[in-house]
Amino acid sequence: MAVKTAEQYYESLKQTRPTAYVLGEKVENVHEHPLIKGQVAGVAQTYALAQDPEGKELLVSDSSLIGEKVSRFVKLYKSIDDLLIKVKMLKLLSQRIGTCYMRCTGMDALNSTGVITYEVDRKYGTNYQQRFLEYLKYVQRNDLVVWSGVTDVKGDRSLRPSAQPDPDMYLHVVDKTKDGIVVRGAKIHQSGSLCAHEGLILPVREMRENDKDYAVCFAIPVDAEGIIHVYGRGTLEARVLEGIDLGNVEYGKFCPMVIFDNVFVPWDRVFLCGEYEFAGPLVRTFGSYHRHSHGGCKCGVGDVIIGAAAAIAEYNGVPNVSHINAKLTEMIKTAQTMYGCCLAASVEATKSDSSIYLVDSVLANTSKLYEGKEYHEMIRMMVDIAGGLAADMPSEKDLRNPEIGPFIEKYLKGAADVLVEDRMRMFRLIEKLAFETRDIVSNIHGGGSPEAHRMTMFRDTDLEPKKKMAKRLAGIKEKN
Amino acid sequence: MAVKTAEQYYESLKQTRPTAYVLGEKVENVHEHPLIKGQVAGVAQTYALAQDPEGKELLVSDSSLIGEKVSRFVKLYKSIDDLLIKVKMLKLLSQRIGTCYMRCTGMDALNSTGVITYEVDRKYGTNYQQRFLEYLKYVQRNDLVVWSGVTDVKGDRSLRPSAQPDPDMYLHVVDKTKDGIVVRGAKIHQSGSLCAHEGLILPVREMRENDKDYAVCFAIPVDAEGIIHVYGRGTLEARVLEGIDLGNVEYGKFCPMVIFDNVFVPWDRVFLCGEYEFAGPLVRTFGSYHRHSHGGCKCGVGDVIIGAAAAIAEYNGVPNVSHINAKLTEMIKTAQTMYGCCLAASVEATKSDSSIYLVDSVLANTSKLYEGKEYHEMIRMMVDIAGGLAADMPSEKDLRNPEIGPFIEKYLKGAADVLVEDRMRMFRLIEKLAFETRDIVSNIHGGGSPEAHRMTMFRDTDLEPKKKMAKRLAGIKEKN
Amino acid sequence: MAVKTAEQYYESLKQTRPTAYVLGEKVENVHEHPLIKGQVAGVAQTYALAQDPEGKELLVSDSSLIGEKVSRFVKLYKSIDDLLIKVKMLKLLSQRIGTCYMRCTGMDALNSTGVITYEVDRKYGTNYQQRFLEYLKYVQRNDLVVWSGVTDVKGDRSLRPSAQPDPDMYLHVVDKTKDGIVVRGAKIHQSGSLCAHEGLILPVREMRENDKDYAVCFAIPVDAEGIIHVYGRGTLEARVLEGIDLGNVEYGKFCPMVIFDNVFVPWDRVFLCGEYEFAGPLVRTFGSYHRHSHGGCKCGVGDVIIGAAAAIAEYNGVPNVSHINAKLTEMIKTAQTMYGCCLAASVEATKSDSSIYLVDSVLANTSKLYEGKEYHEMIRMMVDIAGGLAADMPSEKDLRNPEIGPFIEKYLKGAADVLVEDRMRMFRLIEKLAFETRDIVSNIHGGGSPEAHRMTMFRDTDLEPKKKMAKRLAGIKEKN
Amino acid sequence: MAVKTAEQYYESLKQTRPTAYVLGEKVENVHEHPLIKGQVAGVAQTYALAQDPEGKELLVSDSSLIGEKVSRFVKLYKSIDDLLIKVKMLKLLSQRIGTCYMRCTGMDALNSTGVITYEVDRKYGTNYQQRFLEYLKYVQRNDLVVWSGVTDVKGDRSLRPSAQPDPDMYLHVVDKTKDGIVVRGAKIHQSGSLCAHEGLILPVREMRENDKDYAVCFAIPVDAEGIIHVYGRGTLEARVLEGIDLGNVEYGKFCPMVIFDNVFVPWDRVFLCGEYEFAGPLVRTFGSYHRHSHGGCKCGVGDVIIGAAAAIAEYNGVPNVSHINAKLTEMIKTAQTMYGCCLAASVEATKSDSSIYLVDSVLANTSKLYEGKEYHEMIRMMVDIAGGLAADMPSEKDLRNPEIGPFIEKYLKGAADVLVEDRMRMFRLIEKLAFETRDIVSNIHGGGSPEAHRMTMFRDTDLEPKKKMAKRLAGIKEKN
Repeated sequence: MAVKTAEQYYESLKQTRPTAYVLGEKVENVHEHPLIKGQVAGVAQTYALAQDPEGKELLVSDSSLIGEKVSRFVKLYKSIDDLLIKVKMLKLLSQRIGTCYMRCTGMDALNSTGVITYEVDRKYGTNYQQRFLEYLKYVQRNDLVVWSGVTDVKGDRSLRPSAQPDPDMYLHVVDKTKDGIVVRGAKIHQSGSLCAHEGLILPVREMRENDKDYAVCFAIPVDAEGIIHVYGRGTLEARVLEGIDLGNVEYGKFCPMVIFDNVFVPWDRVFLCGEYEFAGPLVRTFGSYHRHSHGGCKCGVGDVIIGAAAAIAEYNGVPNVSHINAKLTEMIKTAQTMYGCCLAASVEATKSDSSIYLVDSVLANTSKLYEGKEYHEMIRMMVDIAGGLAADMPSEKDLRNPEIGPFIEKYLKGAADVLVEDRMRMFRLIEKLAFETRDIVSNIHGGGSPEAHRMTMFRDTDLEPKKKMAKRLAGIKEKN
Repeated sequence: MAVKTAEQYYESLKQTRPTAYVLGEKVENVHEHPLIKGQVAGVAQTYALAQDPEGKELLVSDSSLIGEKVSRFVKLYKSIDDLLIKVKMLKLLSQRIGTCYMRCTGMDALNSTGVITYEVDRKYGTNYQQRFLEYLKYVQRNDLVVWSGVTDVKGDRSLRPSAQPDPDMYLHVVDKTKDGIVVRGAKIHQSGSLCAHEGLILPVREMRENDKDYAVCFAIPVDAEGIIHVYGRGTLEARVLEGIDLGNVEYGKFCPMVIFDNVFVPWDRVFLCGEYEFAGPLVRTFGSYHRHSHGGCKCGVGDVIIGAAAAIAEYNGVPNVSHINAKLTEMIKTAQTMYGCCLAASVEATKSDSSIYLVDSVLANTSKLYEGKEYHEMIRMMVDIAGGLAADMPSEKDLRNPEIGPFIEKYLKGAADVLVEDRMRMFRLIEKLAFETRDIVSNIHGGGSPEAHRMTMFRDTDLEPKKKMAKRLAGIKEKN
Repeated sequence: MAVKTAEQYYESLKQTRPTAYVLGEKVENVHEHPLIKGQVAGVAQTYALAQDPEGKELLVSDSSLIGEKVSRFVKLYKSIDDLLIKVKMLKLLSQRIGTCYMRCTGMDALNSTGVITYEVDRKYGTNYQQRFLEYLKYVQRNDLVVWSGVTDVKGDRSLRPSAQPDPDMYLHVVDKTKDGIVVRGAKIHQSGSLCAHEGLILPVREMRENDKDYAVCFAIPVDAEGIIHVYGRGTLEARVLEGIDLGNVEYGKFCPMVIFDNVFVPWDRVFLCGEYEFAGPLVRTFGSYHRHSHGGCKCGVGDVIIGAAAAIAEYNGVPNVSHINAKLTEMIKTAQTMYGCCLAASVEATKSDSSIYLVDSVLANTSKLYEGKEYHEMIRMMVDIAGGLAADMPSEKDLRNPEIGPFIEKYLKGAADVLVEDRMRMFRLIEKLAFETRDIVSNIHGGGSPEAHRMTMFRDTDLEPKKKMAKRLAGIKEKN
Repeated sequence: MAVKTAEQYYESLKQTRPTAYVLGEKVENVHEHPLIKGQVAGVAQTYALAQDPEGKELLVSDSSLIGEKVSRFVKLYKSIDDLLIKVKMLKLLSQRIGTCYMRCTGMDALNSTGVITYEVDRKYGTNYQQRFLEYLKYVQRNDLVVWSGVTDVKGDRSLRPSAQPDPDMYLHVVDKTKDGIVVRGAKIHQSGSLCAHEGLILPVREMRENDKDYAVCFAIPVDAEGIIHVYGRGTLEARVLEGIDLGNVEYGKFCPMVIFDNVFVPWDRVFLCGEYEFAGPLVRTFGSYHRHSHGGCKCGVGDVIIGAAAAIAEYNGVPNVSHINAKLTEMIKTAQTMYGCCLAASVEATKSDSSIYLVDSVLANTSKLYEGKEYHEMIRMMVDIAGGLAADMPSEKDLRNPEIGPFIEKYLKGAADVLVEDRMRMFRLIEKLAFETRDIVSNIHGGGSPEAHRMTMFRDTDLEPKKKMAKRLAGIKEKN
């Protein structure tokens, strides 16, 4: 069976040798680095739960491509049910991990590449889809982690790729040979890239004829020559070596910049190369899939947020207060909205010509807009419920100090039946859930910024039938 | 076939002779009264569209009960698909009618009665369900309009039914004979009662043993002896005789108070009588169904609102302005949220023991909360986009007046290619959509007030698993 | 003394003979017309309260111009205190009248004309300010009601005045003689024009050289030849003849379109004529003053809204419920915000070269933005608290009907110690406060639309110093 | 003159020897500790600016108490002007420092103690006010930094002080001698306590007779025997030794828990001791003053936030984009609202019997509610405008690394004329402004939690006159 165990995943990672820098230093056994290993542990859970009776039902599915059971993270969306289960799978994992396990990006990138290669081939007679499906078989058989490389560094945001003073601000083809292509550029915010075996690299925006060399899609091993991962630092990183103060004690997230310094890609891993009019559809298809993923993921994290708020209210001795219950209800409303709109985006999915199902983009983007805005209000309410200790609680080291430890033990006591250490742990989790930049900023900018979601919704909504409805009711005769 | 035409509906109404008062006067041919006929026309559309290829697919279904095609408005929810199609049917109808067509209340009341009679019978060995199914066959075979009578006048809100100084503030049984029961009380906000053939009357709240006589559910013809319908007046009622100024030129809404002045109900139409612990489940089941209906309905009206806003922007000469598009996008977000959460409440539905499907109450209530609050912001944005003429436009009579008509024609001109009359019609529709109380207040209070939705959501959400998730992530060991 | 009594006001109105149409009919004694007299009664209160010990302190002030006591409504803003008291005066009046008393528009128009005529004279050596001050003396000595005519009908909103297909879509000078000018056009949303003795007409936007003829400001009697007032209809107008159902039993609002059909204005009443670069400053000065007025006015109406919500909660028997108190608190927050920002806009006022004080435009516009959005949420909360009877309560005629009156009396009973009639009255007031278009739409569009307020705030905020602050803190050296 | 320079402040701090623990270690020269010195630098600015022509006008005032110039931070509020200038002073300082300079807490505590000691003396014939004024003279003559100790650790929040299982969860008197009192307990969230010379300790809530020993107010040197300061850790503390990555390169904030381990206080420094009914008024007076302070402070920080957002938009190459300008306008609205409501709370201030002015509590709490909620949306909008680099930017060490530094320099380039280092600095400032817990949580919980503000507003608003206004307009006769 093509579904790996967590141990096999850890083992397979050891076979990779990515070039990685963390806070200015080159790191060898990077998967064990304290700033990295938390997310490796999260990804490992996607393997562990596939072996678990509870998780198996959602995480494992059949692949007609290889005729075996595969992880849903490497499967194409072949039905409405696939999309519904995807949402539920991500929700479950987020409830368990409380932060990013990154495999949804690869899943969404694989599916969007599947949709678009079909269309490119139809227009140009290319054989991208065949290449892609061969690649996908390899991924499925080995149950690989694929990260998706979408977001370029972008340079001056007002300029198109080919108009930038430095042509490398968007990743592009700098050479073509009979064996393959050479690419250069840098992708930023690459959630968990070092947990992956492979990257699937997509253009970040629509392209015009001038931008042709930027219309490129390909797969690449995480440790290919010329690829450099540079760790991006976040708010709470310094806590990684510390027990209680870590908040989420096992799992974490990191988002490197990944530099492509003249990286060679053989042709059989190239899935788009110059067909610029498909760059936009490719990234938009990815975008809708990924906003759909966010909804599933963040309603799961949302349950953790709601649970943390409800728990700390108890720990503080105020378990049943009307204004707290009112806030919890608002929080439930927001989490359910994201979840509900993603289920609905699945139900309203349509089959593309490639036979892969496309989510309803308006509903998927609607869900993401709540993550970008109301979800922050939900986090704020958790802090509001928790109280000021989310800001400035003494450290575990103070608790363990023989002189002041007893004072900490005495004065951080809340409800009688709650251990001080447990109360401190819960406050640290709340701090982590509310203030870890790699998670929080992703709520806003992950899968595109809110403005991108709004543009998509507006573009994908046909106002004409709605105007007609209004005119008919007002008794206005349409001109022909 | 048991599906009537619009003409047959009109004909059948003439057979009813309800006692009705409008603005202090007793009215004979009430279905033709200008304040009433607009909603009769809306209900007639539920028949007309069942004959129309576009509407048929959603509006007509099979009934295993009578082995015939029936209107979906009189059918039980026997699958997730039934619930999904219900949402789409209501959306379509609202897009066509732009206001209330009232049949959803009966549909929801029939289904909740179906669910609960099964449970009562199981506990008490009564035969309510059989009675109910016989009644339902009658309704299906004759394709009747059923209105649901839920909301009592309630008197002093702080007192339970049996504690009111006047025992009639909630409808109750005042006598029982071998033939049936006699009831007294008054139901308020009875949307479109006079368009119906029958009423299905439910308790409005949970009841305790003292309130036993108030735990009653039964069916009754609209014109039974002792029933008096009293029209409730709304903001724009005075426009009913006037063309353009009417806004929605064909359809309208009215919500009488219906008085039950010692009304006799034979036993075969009584579906609950004294089993007080089922009053709460019955109204809560109805509530979740009806909030689900609201979501389908109001996203359809929402499309009309969005269409009216987009149309008036064009009529004003500002079809493509960034802040207007930003507002339209927010409006789309709200309408899609209501729709999405209702589809999701269908997907997450579960089969009750009666074999009727129950919607997910948290998702259904989530949808309704957006109707109660964000929907009003959506309406406000329509007025914001439209401009001040929504407030104080001269009347059609001014337009037709030979002296000042030409001034109106001259000075109310907007974009060059739009007729002044059409612009006036669109402004009147906007006025109607934004300020007709019977519609607007229903967004807030229909299907229960927002506070009821919040209570339901909070009660129906299990916080324990969420607290456990947070504790596990924080490294807190649960005590056993 | 130059301060009239209410009786003198009524008497003086009789001397005017405006041409007026209401719902398609020419009306003679228009001030007594049921659709008009409610606002005349409101304006009369501005006179009555000037004689009242409570109101006098705010409403009466000294004019250095004529050396007499004058109504504050015809006084120039000569100090910060004048602006602070203005806010309090408007708040008091709104608390008493609950709707529009319209004199603030004239007060703001007089002051902005005072500011700008000074500047025009300085640049061009004209003598507009002298003319204006002579006119103001006449207004002060006779304690006149002045309405301000600002909003043109605007035609196609995407076109400038001089580019409209019909040149009359903005009011403009069509002829000049040695005696005066002739103007043509139409002003819309002219709140209470028929309650006034005089109009002060301003341009509605900034003008360019091509629009020169549209840069015109002048004063005109309400009944000058060629002026036609056309009543604009609103939601609840049909209630005017009915007692309880009227809601606000004494006062009302109307907003005609005022047509200027070749109206002659003598030179001594012309205060701007062709100096196009001053049209923008004039309307912007008016705009800031008027948004400042709105804040004072609407926090007074806001108190009525809060009071109505608190009263109906009692009448319904739920005087002390936590979610209702939470809503009342939100409502207080919004009303106080509008009030607070207007007081602050007064405190931060600066003296113009004309010696008239200018409010802080950013703070005044901030206040108005709350009126445009959060105030609607406040109104929605009142309806939420009140319950469904705001939508569809039977009429007073039903209450008085001998057959069903007793049922109404019985079934609309709320708390034991509250008369049914009083409860009905309060529901009608709530309906009026929430759904009367002439009031509600004015919250959004009065004093310019929300987008205009945002543009003003953005334009009037200097971002450079703020950017410098951020750079200094980040350790960024500014280039010189 | 009693106004110190920054150097004198630094010198004076050296004379103090507080017992302090930071992350589990006892620290000797604590004022130079990297986690502490940033806030000392901020406080030093309150001295430096008092010598600066720009700051002097706001920061220095006359004290009638000692007949000398004093810092406004140690002055009583003797007029409306004092309160207006306070708001402007705090705004200026926050614009300069971008985080907490802590002296407002002492200023507000001194004033509230001044108000209440007068009232206690009047009732009980005590001489607290005299003692207090003597103490204040000492503070003024030496221009001391006073921190206010208000928030107790509180234990089980559902229990009153005297009902806690551990009686020390609220600070209380454990012994009284002829020389003074001995107190025990712990105060949490003591912003910048180690920057102070003195603490002024107040009760945190209203007390009943049982809680008598908890009704205590006194002054104490920062290094009195038995006082232990324990540093509370926050999100970004680990950056303190690093240049660019620090964000706000000079200033910082810390909030220790301060333990009172049987601390002796001589009688002449005791200002309340057992008069329990004044504990509530004392903390409520402090609360309103301090919410007023927050509004001044946070609109200054708000200007930095707006400036950072506007600057990063330029640095990203998108200086003039409509949706960014729309967001900046919303941000301005929120900052101005807080400012405006605080100016208004000053204008509406009233003179207490002690002759110290009391701010309008409803307006001051209104301002604070915006800080608690809408301000977070403002911060979210800054991150929305900035983009994903706020989450995960490589570190300065990466920039300085010879191997990957050139890649960082290349790929983090934005607009052509902006240095990469400057862009990185601005992103780090944004990270700091958005995610530093000690600042952010204080927006919510500083000066009491949002629920406390709502309770205060509701309690301090008289609904009766508002209900009367509504009744009068509805034509309801009041019963006598």
